[in-house]
Amino acid sequence: MTDPSSAYELLAISVRKLIDATIRTELQPSVIASTAAEIDAITRRLRSEQMPGSFGQRARIDGQSPASGNAVIGVRNPSAPPLMIHDRGNGSVCAEVVLGAAYEGPAGYVHGGVCAMLLDHILGATAHKPGRPAYTGTLTLRYHRGTPLRTPLQAEAWIDHVEVVKTFAAGQLSDGQGVTVSAEGVFIHRRH
Amino acid sequence: MTDPSSAYELLAISVRKLIDATIRTELQPSVIASTAAEIDAITRRLRSEQMPGSFGQRARIDGQSPASGNAVIGVRNPSAPPLMIHDRGNGSVCAEVVLGAAYEGPAGYVHGGVCAMLLDHILGATAHKPGRPAYTGTLTLRYHRGTPLRTPLQAEAWIDHVEVVKTFAAGQLSDGQGVTVSAEGVFIHRRH
Repeated sequence: MTDPSSAYELLAISVRKLIDATIRTELQPSVIASTAAEIDAITRRLRSEQMPGSFGQRARIDGQSPASGNAVIGVRNPSAPPLMIHDRGNGSVCAEVVLGAAYEGPAGYVHGGVCAMLLDHILGATAHKPGRPAYTGTLTLRYHRGTPLRTPLQAEAWIDHVEVVKTFAAGQLSDGQGVTVSAEGVFIHRRH
Repeated sequence: MTDPSSAYELLAISVRKLIDATIRTELQPSVIASTAAEIDAITRRLRSEQMPGSFGQRARIDGQSPASGNAVIGVRNPSAPPLMIHDRGNGSVCAEVVLGAAYEGPAGYVHGGVCAMLLDHILGATAHKPGRPAYTGTLTLRYHRGTPLRTPLQAEAWIDHVEVVKTFAAGQLSDGQGVTVSAEGVFIHRRH
């Protein structure tokens, strides 16, 4: 393993698969209880050396991105899809993602709140600059139809215009048939 | 165990703690790799009997709520906080929740997209009726200040008015110091 941080990333990938299996398993309840005990033992071992707060609050920087714990893009966060955002230049960004059972709302469809979460992040990414994060001011979402689970989705966003510290962004979530949710938002850089 | 479905719920609680430990562990990468292999073995066992799609797509109903896999309220979904929603009557609903490392955006704060996800669900809950789900039409969020991690939060929502199949709802997320994010949304019952 060339990059030591990749061990943590691989652990997160394993736990991400475990989340899916936990939701979908049909093993008998009697077997499930002993499995939970095994997982608790692993958790105790991982906790034997752990940072006191959340990932972003770590004092020590050792090559791991401060965003590694992020709820949407964090490669160390098993609850994050994680969204891998590509920069197309000029504030235009996109990401492809397939969402499984962990992101369900209506049967077979992505939870509307998960769509909102992904769009908040990708619209905000139009305004992010290294060391100068942008915070959501307002976000408006329009749901055109259901966003299917287990289907390739594209999230994309772009800058409409910028006013001093405010970036006005727009974006959308789409499947192969077109847009499922569209969004507009204002993202703010705090003055130093 | 009196309720067999509670075994699955306890498994989800164990995996929820594992997610937090996965993000925050500072064990050496060499130890992490063998832990990931143990988790993969557990995942294979859980997958030996599993439903083909997502939880909501199950044909068989055996006392487990169809919402058990839901991304926000699913007691079988380790990625869900899960939000426990209380009905105050007349479409007014509330929930208390403490969010940990898995929900981080800015260091020490809840991801703005996670706030959006919770508010989408709780505003929608004002319109939900048994067997008659409501779908998000539009959702607008205003972020007043950061929402802290590891702090008791209250989510609440109420009905502003109803027009035929549309429920106009409003709500907010608060900590002990007041409102952090407020929201308005339109939720739609599909005609049968």
